[in-house]
Amino acid sequence: MKTLTVHLPGREYDILIEKGILRQTGVECRRVLPKTTRILLVTDSNVAPLYGKQAEESLTNTGFTVRTFTIPAGEPSKCADQLVNLWNEAMSFGITRTDAIVALGGGVVGDLAGFAAATILRGIPFIQIPTTLLAQVDSSVGGKVAIDLDAGKNLVGAFWQPKLVLMDPDTLNTLPDITFSDGMAEVIKYGCIWDADFFRLLEQCGNRSGVMERIEEVLYTCCAIKAKVVEQDERDTGLRMILNFGHTLGHAYEKAYHYETYTHGQAVSAGMCLVAKLGEQRNLTVPGTEAAIRRLTAAYGLPTHIPCSLEDYRSAVGLDKKGSGDAITVIFLKQLGETLPRKMDKKELLNLL
Amino acid sequence: MKTLTVHLPGREYDILIEKGILRQTGVECRRVLPKTTRILLVTDSNVAPLYGKQAEESLTNTGFTVRTFTIPAGEPSKCADQLVNLWNEAMSFGITRTDAIVALGGGVVGDLAGFAAATILRGIPFIQIPTTLLAQVDSSVGGKVAIDLDAGKNLVGAFWQPKLVLMDPDTLNTLPDITFSDGMAEVIKYGCIWDADFFRLLEQCGNRSGVMERIEEVLYTCCAIKAKVVEQDERDTGLRMILNFGHTLGHAYEKAYHYETYTHGQAVSAGMCLVAKLGEQRNLTVPGTEAAIRRLTAAYGLPTHIPCSLEDYRSAVGLDKKGSGDAITVIFLKQLGETLPRKMDKKELLNLL
Repeated sequence: MKTLTVHLPGREYDILIEKGILRQTGVECRRVLPKTTRILLVTDSNVAPLYGKQAEESLTNTGFTVRTFTIPAGEPSKCADQLVNLWNEAMSFGITRTDAIVALGGGVVGDLAGFAAATILRGIPFIQIPTTLLAQVDSSVGGKVAIDLDAGKNLVGAFWQPKLVLMDPDTLNTLPDITFSDGMAEVIKYGCIWDADFFRLLEQCGNRSGVMERIEEVLYTCCAIKAKVVEQDERDTGLRMILNFGHTLGHAYEKAYHYETYTHGQAVSAGMCLVAKLGEQRNLTVPGTEAAIRRLTAAYGLPTHIPCSLEDYRSAVGLDKKGSGDAITVIFLKQLGETLPRKMDKKELLNLL
Repeated sequence: MKTLTVHLPGREYDILIEKGILRQTGVECRRVLPKTTRILLVTDSNVAPLYGKQAEESLTNTGFTVRTFTIPAGEPSKCADQLVNLWNEAMSFGITRTDAIVALGGGVVGDLAGFAAATILRGIPFIQIPTTLLAQVDSSVGGKVAIDLDAGKNLVGAFWQPKLVLMDPDTLNTLPDITFSDGMAEVIKYGCIWDADFFRLLEQCGNRSGVMERIEEVLYTCCAIKAKVVEQDERDTGLRMILNFGHTLGHAYEKAYHYETYTHGQAVSAGMCLVAKLGEQRNLTVPGTEAAIRRLTAAYGLPTHIPCSLEDYRSAVGLDKKGSGDAITVIFLKQLGETLPRKMDKKELLNLL
C-alpha cells in the first residue's frame, strides 16, 4: 500500500492507494470515523452494480448503518435538483453531525456528494472512493466540490476536504478505453508541469497495460504533485493555476462542441499540445517539447489537435463578455517539468491563435 | 458611531453601528470591496419598499453596478428553491469572484443570501445590513448561514463570515412591536448569560422607547458578547452552546405550535424563565433569578410561560428518535450574568418538566 498524507492548515488526511482496498472500506472508514453511526453512500448507476455492494457490505460489517443513494451516471446529475434530493435523503436517514457521506464513483459523484457533505448541518465528514482515473488523480485532491448550473459548470460549491481517500486501482479495470484515456491526459499534465522524470516513465509505460503495471506509483506521483500545489494554495489564489496547463484552450474545445464530442481529457490533451507549440513559437519553451507531448498523448489515444473557431476561443477566454477583465494568465512550459505562467492581454492570446 | 471588530483566524471584520449609516452603504462597502464591480443586493418584500432604494442608490452612487433580488418576506423563503433562484440570478448578472452579495433585511434574508455567498463560485464576499433587532444582535455575528428543508430549520448551510456588517438603528423604527420584542428576548439573553450590569441597564430602560434611547450601546453590547463567544468557538463545538440558554425549551414551544403561534423570541423568553425556575429548584441558580427574568421579559411584552405537553418536550430533545444520544447539555444560570452548563440524561430533564 502507498500512503500519501495531505497537510492543510488545521487538518490533514491520508490517501491510501492499494489494489483490493475497496474490500477494506469499512475498516479504513472506521479508523477515521470513530463516532459515526450512519453512512450515506453516494454512487451512480454505472458504479453501483460493479462496486456498490462490496463497499456497502464492508461498511455494514464494520458496524455502520448504511444507506445507498444512487444517481444516474453522467454530468447532468451534478445539478441542483440532485443536490436537494441528496439533502433530503440525508435528513430522512437521520444524519447527525458525526455521521458521514462516502462518495463511491467518478468526479460527478465526488463533486455532488462532497458539496452535500460540505453543507449538510453546515458540514459533516466526507470520504472519497474515486473509481475513475480522472477522479483519482484530479478531483480527489484539493477539496474543490461543486455542482453545475444552467449557466455553466462548477458554478456553485465549496472547499471541503475529505477525512480520507481510498483508491483501489482494480476499479480501473472496468473502465472503457476512452475513460481511461480521459484520465491519462491529467496524468501526463503532471509530468509536463512538475516532473520530467515522471513524463519519461509514462513514455516507457507506452500504453494502458504498461501504466496498469505501475499504477500505484503513477497514482501516488500524481496525487503527491497535486497535494504539494494545493498545500501551498488551498483557496486557489496563486500557484494552483499551474494545474490549469492546457485547460484554458481545452475549455474552449469542450465548450465549442457543447461538452459532447470531446471528453475533458481529450480537450486538455489538444490544449496542452497547442500551448506547447505557442510557447515554442514565442521562444518561451524549449524546442521539442511540443513534439514530446504530442507523441505521448497520441500513445494514450488522445487527440493532439481539435479544430476550433476564433469565435469559440474568444468566448472561452471571456472576450465575449463585458467586465471579465482584459488580462489572462496562460500557463506555458519552460521545459518538460517546469511551468512559465505569463499574464497576457486576451487579444494578444487570440492573435497568437 | 460605534465600531466592533470581530477577530477570527485569518480574517477580521467590523460591525459599524450608527443611526443613518444606511445612507453611507456605498462608501462603507467600497472601503472593504476595493476591486468589486457588481453587487447583488438581496432583500425581501417588506424591506424593499422601506430601505431598498436608499441602499441601492448609495451603492450605485459609489460606482457599483447593482441588481436587487427581492424574496417574499417570511421564513418560507429560506428554502432550496429560493437558493437556486438566487444562484441563477447571480450568474445571469455575471458575478465574478471579486463581486459581492449584500443582504438587506432580517434573519431570513441574511441566512439565504449568506449561504448563497458562501457557495457561489465556492465563496464570494458578503456584507450584511441587518434591519431587525433579532438579526442585528443574533444572526449578524457568528457566520452561521443556512436554509430550511422540509425536515426542519437550518439543516443545510455553511460557516461564512461577512466582510462588513452595517447596523442602522433607525431601521428598527419601522418594526411592529411584536418583532421588536422578538429581538428583545435575545437582547435579554445576553444579560442573563454574560453581563448582569447589562441586565440592569435593560431593567432601567423599561420599555421599547427606553431601549431606543440607548440603542447603539445595546446593539454594541450584544454583538460584543456574541463576538467574544464566537471568537473562542467559531465552529460551534464548545463554548458557543451557552448562546442556547432558553433555546432547548424554546425550540419545543416553537415546534409544538408549528412555528406559527409564537415567534422565536417569545419561545426563547418562556424557555429562559422555565430553565431559571428549574435551576432554582435544583439549587443551581441563585434564588430570585427567575423572578428577575420574568419581570424583565414581561416588561418587553414577552411571554413568561407557554403551555407545552410532555410529548412535545420529548420530541424537542430528540427522545422520540433513535440514535440521537441519551445526554443533553442544558444551559442553567448560576446567577444573572453567569452560566452553568450541565450535561444531563434526557430522561432526567423530562422528569424535571
